[in-house]
Amino acid sequence: MRRKDRAITEEEAAALLRRGEYGVLSTVSEDGNPYGVPVHYCLIGHDIYFHCAIQGRKIDHFEKNKLVSFCVVGDTELLPREFATRYESVIVAGEIEEVFDPRKQTVLERLVKKYSPEFFESGLKYIEKFKDKTRVFKITIQTLSGKARK
Amino acid sequence: MRRKDRAITEEEAAALLRRGEYGVLSTVSEDGNPYGVPVHYCLIGHDIYFHCAIQGRKIDHFEKNKLVSFCVVGDTELLPREFATRYESVIVAGEIEEVFDPRKQTVLERLVKKYSPEFFESGLKYIEKFKDKTRVFKITIQTLSGKARK
Repeated sequence: MRRKDRAITEEEAAALLRRGEYGVLSTVSEDGNPYGVPVHYCLIGHDIYFHCAIQGRKIDHFEKNKLVSFCVVGDTELLPREFATRYESVIVAGEIEEVFDPRKQTVLERLVKKYSPEFFESGLKYIEKFKDKTRVFKITIQTLSGKARK
Repeated sequence: MRRKDRAITEEEAAALLRRGEYGVLSTVSEDGNPYGVPVHYCLIGHDIYFHCAIQGRKIDHFEKNKLVSFCVVGDTELLPREFATRYESVIVAGEIEEVFDPRKQTVLERLVKKYSPEFFESGLKYIEKFKDKTRVFKITIQTLSGKARK
């Protein structure tokens, strides 16, 4: 990070990761080209988890290159008079791996708790119905850096 | 895109690009690793422009690999009862090049118009003061795909 004065602590970065609504997952294709796509996610311990369809471009990518970048932007506010923006963001470098039951079930339940906390019971039925049509991946965080203009 | 039923038209994707507040720019490092970072931007014609400091990690990356991915997420709304989200997003694959005056000046003015429309006159002075400390890049769009759950 160039502007050290805008770094946030690791704790602040982790807190932003915990409350972020979605992140942009950046992967690299087999021929070396970047691809960034938004995903919903949850944090369990220090790891990021997300689910997706059985097949897709990002899966093709990280089956060849397990290294990914994950960016979450928190609250932003334009400061027009100052030609600036109040923002906070966190950028993770990490490694992807697929997870399977019982971890897969735990992650899907955690996603229901994060995004649909008031519908947990029907969420369990939803998981049961669609679990075979989804895959779950874990990002093990290698580096975590946060930035904010407060 | 896997879910063809959620594709939006090129016009809708372009409209989202025009009104988006920021995008995540994904680049690839010299050793082939992905890096995604949020940037403010503007659209002029069919091209995306952004400015940044003179030096930085993303510049190191696209000095070696001009291909980038750029992702803008528009309005999102959680739909807890449906275990889903209403969202719209656009993903661009494009090629980066640096631009210089007079184009650089035009882009910086357009950024002021986008983010600080009520302070255009003082924005011109701000540009004059800081122009030498900033670089401006253009992303020529190669492919543009949008997705929405409405």
